[in-house]
Amino acid sequence: MLYLQLLLLKLGAKFVGVKLGILGLGTVGTGTVQLLQDWAGRHPLLQEIEIHRVGVRSLDKPRAVELSTEVLTTDLEAIVNDPAVDIVVEVMGGLEPARSLILKALSNGKHVVTANKAAIARFGAEIFTTANEAGVYVMIEASVGGGIPVIQPLKQSLSVNRIHTITGIVNGTTNYILTRMQTEGSNFSDVLADAQRLGYAEADPTADVEGLDAADKIAILASLGFGGRINLQDVYTEGIRQVSKTDIAYAEKLGFVIKLLAIAKRNTPSSPLSIRVHPTLVPQAHPLASINGVYNAILVEGEPIGQVMFFGPGAGAGATASAVTSDILNLVAVLKTNTAVANPLLACGHQEYCQIAPMAELTTRFYARFLTNDQPGVIGKLGTCFGNYGVSLESIVQTGFQGELAEIVVVTHDVREGNFRQALAEIRNLSAIESIPSLLRVL
Amino acid sequence: MLYLQLLLLKLGAKFVGVKLGILGLGTVGTGTVQLLQDWAGRHPLLQEIEIHRVGVRSLDKPRAVELSTEVLTTDLEAIVNDPAVDIVVEVMGGLEPARSLILKALSNGKHVVTANKAAIARFGAEIFTTANEAGVYVMIEASVGGGIPVIQPLKQSLSVNRIHTITGIVNGTTNYILTRMQTEGSNFSDVLADAQRLGYAEADPTADVEGLDAADKIAILASLGFGGRINLQDVYTEGIRQVSKTDIAYAEKLGFVIKLLAIAKRNTPSSPLSIRVHPTLVPQAHPLASINGVYNAILVEGEPIGQVMFFGPGAGAGATASAVTSDILNLVAVLKTNTAVANPLLACGHQEYCQIAPMAELTTRFYARFLTNDQPGVIGKLGTCFGNYGVSLESIVQTGFQGELAEIVVVTHDVREGNFRQALAEIRNLSAIESIPSLLRVL
Repeated sequence: MLYLQLLLLKLGAKFVGVKLGILGLGTVGTGTVQLLQDWAGRHPLLQEIEIHRVGVRSLDKPRAVELSTEVLTTDLEAIVNDPAVDIVVEVMGGLEPARSLILKALSNGKHVVTANKAAIARFGAEIFTTANEAGVYVMIEASVGGGIPVIQPLKQSLSVNRIHTITGIVNGTTNYILTRMQTEGSNFSDVLADAQRLGYAEADPTADVEGLDAADKIAILASLGFGGRINLQDVYTEGIRQVSKTDIAYAEKLGFVIKLLAIAKRNTPSSPLSIRVHPTLVPQAHPLASINGVYNAILVEGEPIGQVMFFGPGAGAGATASAVTSDILNLVAVLKTNTAVANPLLACGHQEYCQIAPMAELTTRFYARFLTNDQPGVIGKLGTCFGNYGVSLESIVQTGFQGELAEIVVVTHDVREGNFRQALAEIRNLSAIESIPSLLRVL
Repeated sequence: MLYLQLLLLKLGAKFVGVKLGILGLGTVGTGTVQLLQDWAGRHPLLQEIEIHRVGVRSLDKPRAVELSTEVLTTDLEAIVNDPAVDIVVEVMGGLEPARSLILKALSNGKHVVTANKAAIARFGAEIFTTANEAGVYVMIEASVGGGIPVIQPLKQSLSVNRIHTITGIVNGTTNYILTRMQTEGSNFSDVLADAQRLGYAEADPTADVEGLDAADKIAILASLGFGGRINLQDVYTEGIRQVSKTDIAYAEKLGFVIKLLAIAKRNTPSSPLSIRVHPTLVPQAHPLASINGVYNAILVEGEPIGQVMFFGPGAGAGATASAVTSDILNLVAVLKTNTAVANPLLACGHQEYCQIAPMAELTTRFYARFLTNDQPGVIGKLGTCFGNYGVSLESIVQTGFQGELAEIVVVTHDVREGNFRQALAEIRNLSAIESIPSLLRVL
């Protein structure tokens, strides 16, 4: 570092440290303050950062970090309006007042670091537009994949590729639940209850188990990977409540594990984007099949790179603080270069929305489980209905009985989802079919 | 992009495109030119790059890319001295004249992108010193892990962590050979011969199979992760020639796979660095155990992030061209910001050398295979010798016979390597011990 400081001196840069205004002192905020205060043995630039203001809801709450009384405040507006603050770090979460505070900070010419996937996925358009107008940056490494560096590689290293697929296990809670269902042969509801007891799932687990959190994250990843904005409503989202231990067992026999995948895929640079979150049968040899527990992984495929995968802890105070602080560090480094001209790899460079393909147009394999009356010829009837809509079958297994009913499991070859649904509608009307308890896509 | 261009205009930046001088038009050079010429659907900044000069050995050789005769030249010196060239891309490989040309380009104020791990691992000190003095950058993403973004994450995202371990499968050739030995139960020499036929191994495979290429790469990764220079001679290096199919089979029975790992590890920020390349028994559940074939993976462990892993193609024209071009793109983005002040996350910030721990001080588990005369009490004698030097055993298995000789396999608990070696010296003198055909470290 010595040499570099001399170099900066020589070039005449004036740099007097960077002042942070941190909004929120929950898990991530506390982790970030701890990291910044305990800088020895980390990047030396961290020493030039000052925690100037930290906005909290209550001044009296006991805290795991020591901050002087001048630093703590309940007036969050004052932080984003404070002329001394260079970077606002939004780690309070939620939609409002987070959105308004971010916008205000940007309008005031402050760079923003945020871990708020929900706000970015919903208000990204206005947030990045405001940032571009003000000539400042919005850094969002912590919004996807916890501590895993994936946002920056997508913005910088991988953007020379024509990305065609991003596939992620981006929600630790559901991956933890599915992994335990798999290894223990347990039910969804039992594992969920236990995960809630252990703190791996929230008291209200909706955002996680319904796939909403994963939808926010794939919207963000796709926006970066495919260079266009995404309307969150366009992300098809299906959660894991319907995944049963029966299906996990059948999947295993067929050579698959079931994972909640977030997928964004474009067949050619000009075709519309397919973007979706749903439980998926993943072949056991696939790189994502062995990502277990609360870990996250994001697989990026493009030309000419082929496949690259990023793996790591998807949540937790330390991992998320690492991502937040790395964004702060990047901004400090940029501030040191003392230029008013935006770096096009750090700024958001796209204003247009990606064109999204309707789910009926998706081409995928399907797994379906049928309960049927044990009549002769029922498999033939199923096959005929599928054949009527051009659905060809990769495997068809009659494995067991549930009471009086026979259980038939089918895996199709690649098929247009719309055709598959038409075949299913016809199958539902067959007198031999009692019910179709499961319907899952296959990677 | 439209908005950004307006923004730049507003801020008064003058930017007139970036001129490349490319040294070498072999596999990587050709891949890079192909990528740059085929820019549609990639990052729009690529359109602002001009391939100004390409240095080759022969002008008459047929090429897979079209370049005008004014661009091709055999005068490499002229490229690094050409005042019009902004960035020199060194993809010729080898030590000289690559080193001299890189140094000359830097002295002339040009940024350098290089894929040359051998040159960086050997001459990094003078190369980065020269770059710092000239106020330019040396970008080396392609030097480790082919297309995998790992250099930039180490320099930027992960540097807020206290890194304590970097463990990599960073040589595709040896990983391909070991994977085939594992899946086919074949011999090293047979698989090597086949790999050479298929183009996965060079005619002279020394640099790969002796671990020298992996040593170059871990020296580079460790230098970034631990913030100090590395003397390449300090990297303990052991190749895979000694790995037999017998050991792979025993390892599998014991729950391990054998991988050539490149490891850099520091127990505390103040303790010396252990840095080494050797075949290693990896527990089957470890994230690196399932990295097969020519793929590479780099696992980084630190505080507070925990474990993150980067996985992808470790070689190949396309993957390496992706890394080279991403470095070029980063430099173009920096040039656009129109500042003379160095970004401390892109420049090399350390001048001191890491202190390296001698191998005798390493604490690790060992796997050893002994051929013994089938005397009663030989296991007892082994145990006594180990006990004399504080080596405790995790498992000891007498599994088979090789002719008249009994085969005993031992896995130790963690032990100081020096102590283990002393015990071995004593064991070698036992009359019951015929030979010690294998000795491997265990992760």
